[in-house]
Amino acid sequence: MNLTDPRTIFDCNERVREQRPLVQNIANFVSMTISANVLLAAGSSPAMVHAAEEVDDFSAIASALCINIGTLSPDWVRSMKVAAEWYGRRGKPWLLDPVGVGATKLRDRTAAELIALRPTAIRANAGEILALAGQSGSVRGVDSAAGSKAAIGAAIALAKSTGAIVAATGETDYVTDGRQLIAIEGGHALMPVSTALGCALSSLCGAFLAVAEPMPAMISALAVYAAAGKIAGKRVKGPGHLPAELCDALHNLCEADIAANSVVRSLPVTEVA
Amino acid sequence: MNLTDPRTIFDCNERVREQRPLVQNIANFVSMTISANVLLAAGSSPAMVHAAEEVDDFSAIASALCINIGTLSPDWVRSMKVAAEWYGRRGKPWLLDPVGVGATKLRDRTAAELIALRPTAIRANAGEILALAGQSGSVRGVDSAAGSKAAIGAAIALAKSTGAIVAATGETDYVTDGRQLIAIEGGHALMPVSTALGCALSSLCGAFLAVAEPMPAMISALAVYAAAGKIAGKRVKGPGHLPAELCDALHNLCEADIAANSVVRSLPVTEVA
Amino acid sequence: MNLTDPRTIFDCNERVREQRPLVQNIANFVSMTISANVLLAAGSSPAMVHAAEEVDDFSAIASALCINIGTLSPDWVRSMKVAAEWYGRRGKPWLLDPVGVGATKLRDRTAAELIALRPTAIRANAGEILALAGQSGSVRGVDSAAGSKAAIGAAIALAKSTGAIVAATGETDYVTDGRQLIAIEGGHALMPVSTALGCALSSLCGAFLAVAEPMPAMISALAVYAAAGKIAGKRVKGPGHLPAELCDALHNLCEADIAANSVVRSLPVTEVA
Repeated sequence: MNLTDPRTIFDCNERVREQRPLVQNIANFVSMTISANVLLAAGSSPAMVHAAEEVDDFSAIASALCINIGTLSPDWVRSMKVAAEWYGRRGKPWLLDPVGVGATKLRDRTAAELIALRPTAIRANAGEILALAGQSGSVRGVDSAAGSKAAIGAAIALAKSTGAIVAATGETDYVTDGRQLIAIEGGHALMPVSTALGCALSSLCGAFLAVAEPMPAMISALAVYAAAGKIAGKRVKGPGHLPAELCDALHNLCEADIAANSVVRSLPVTEVA
Repeated sequence: MNLTDPRTIFDCNERVREQRPLVQNIANFVSMTISANVLLAAGSSPAMVHAAEEVDDFSAIASALCINIGTLSPDWVRSMKVAAEWYGRRGKPWLLDPVGVGATKLRDRTAAELIALRPTAIRANAGEILALAGQSGSVRGVDSAAGSKAAIGAAIALAKSTGAIVAATGETDYVTDGRQLIAIEGGHALMPVSTALGCALSSLCGAFLAVAEPMPAMISALAVYAAAGKIAGKRVKGPGHLPAELCDALHNLCEADIAANSVVRSLPVTEVA
Repeated sequence: MNLTDPRTIFDCNERVREQRPLVQNIANFVSMTISANVLLAAGSSPAMVHAAEEVDDFSAIASALCINIGTLSPDWVRSMKVAAEWYGRRGKPWLLDPVGVGATKLRDRTAAELIALRPTAIRANAGEILALAGQSGSVRGVDSAAGSKAAIGAAIALAKSTGAIVAATGETDYVTDGRQLIAIEGGHALMPVSTALGCALSSLCGAFLAVAEPMPAMISALAVYAAAGKIAGKRVKGPGHLPAELCDALHNLCEADIAANSVVRSLPVTEVA
């Protein structure tokens, strides 16, 4: 399987549309609506379920879980840990989006506790990846002060130490399992100007993790989103309509759109070191 | 009064615009924004108030309540029950939207406890209506795996056993008080692809319950929404802009729009059995 | 400095774009997304952080705080008070948006406790300003039953008694420090028909408070929003697309837009009395 081939990528997208995986999200209050809409637009079935009391039942019927620590409180942290344990126990994939890690001790501790439960994948911006790798000074609130390229080394180290597929996203996205490194280009400069589009991408990754092996799933989700984001960005004159156009682009995406609006390539080993 | 007449339906809509009823919502985190916007677009005044400590005060000034169990936690469940009791005590209408009932024991128990407090109306998709009627295997997360027609019998039984007006919505909506059965067609295939539009419809029902008797209120709310949804669906090329177009259609809706974009008919008694 | 000059106003907007202040929001569940999007569109960096456990850390890196009491519960009230204390202690500006004060005792008590912690600014609709001034019967849920002009006297008294800059917003906005009174016109009749646009304005005020003195900051934020709102209103045919157009207008706003779409004037002392 050629992980960077538009056909491989689109096949994964088609599987989401056919299987309509049920994806549980313990999302943040800002991202819930756009995450649900992105999942629906891609053909998946979202559920925002956060009560610790429900996780046993819900993890039995859902196919994947996305945990987002964007808006924390102690009872939500408890739910996140219980949920991560249930999905792990059932052998179902789950993704961690460590929003704002590095900004507060509560976020640092929560992210560390969740990573110890062995997420299938981690998606974050460069500052968050650097913070997870113990390199401080890179997070500014929930936005990253660093470009994604600066986080490649930390992403690879994180993948090696945790066993998770790690995606460091930004103007270029990087995905690694610790041995391979894939770069994905696409998207649009307005995407960081519309709230929670990174969180919504994490939820989308959850849907793809439900239908494919982790590495191709993450690459495909990021490439599909990069392509849809670029298509959407060309249709707007500001950030306001971007989420709606992004959903339309995801809903209508065809294989040719991926080749025309994203670049996916494997980086040589020398850059991995 | 002819319940299926566009004029009767539109009169109810006009009363919402004139009286601007204050509707309290204990909504879910995903639906709050679109529910508020749908209520505003229809001419009502929404308030998202969930603290148990506030319900006594707020139920004194509001005209109706909509309870949505989409994103549960134990303290919210407590608030829902306290609120249902206050509205019942004050003789004010309240509606239950039992999102995801059948998917977890917490949802089953919460829905049962709330139904015991005698809601004025219940709006749900087919899978949820079937789950309330004890027919399992019909809910898939928060989406329904069954068509609304399959839930007619369960809806009638539920109306009879609870005294509530029951609406089972889907491609065709069915409303029943246990004796009459009304079918409403309209809407658009993209509506389930945009999150929480069913929840927003429940909130809209709350506004109509504040200005009319339960049966005509529910029929009118569903017909108005079906018409606005169809108008909105024709204006979009994907799910992204659907919520915005839906609000515009509700805001600008005139009587002729209802006849042209919805079909409301009374079903013969034989189908009720 | 001429507080009403479009250049002064736009300079403040430019400072937001250049400094990209990090603004913490303890927002309500309805306003979070639109507040974040308005802050991003204006060039600021929003963070929705509400855990009491995080406030110490986060107030060290953020430049301003906006507290919105729209959807209350006891633990959020605790967080709000802890946050207000931290920002006060660090000498950083914070704004209170007392949503729905006057409607319930919990809101009255919470608003009073927060005002005792000396907010830099207060932004509210007329009914809420009147309720804070002890004039009941003016609040209807979270909407105001009174025009903003009726609240001028109460706004001035509130500014004098609290030391906060007070903004009473509505069809015309009034800003006062207790000695000066500035009126701002602009916006669009559809703005109250789209949920939480007042809450989003409060968050925007937070960004401006981070880059300028309180009185010019509040005047500038309100004038910028009035201009963007008027531009957005002209582009829509209903409330649905208004939030998106508002964000686009904020994102693309130039100095000429302010003069062309808002009127800012100082009112004579006789009206202040």
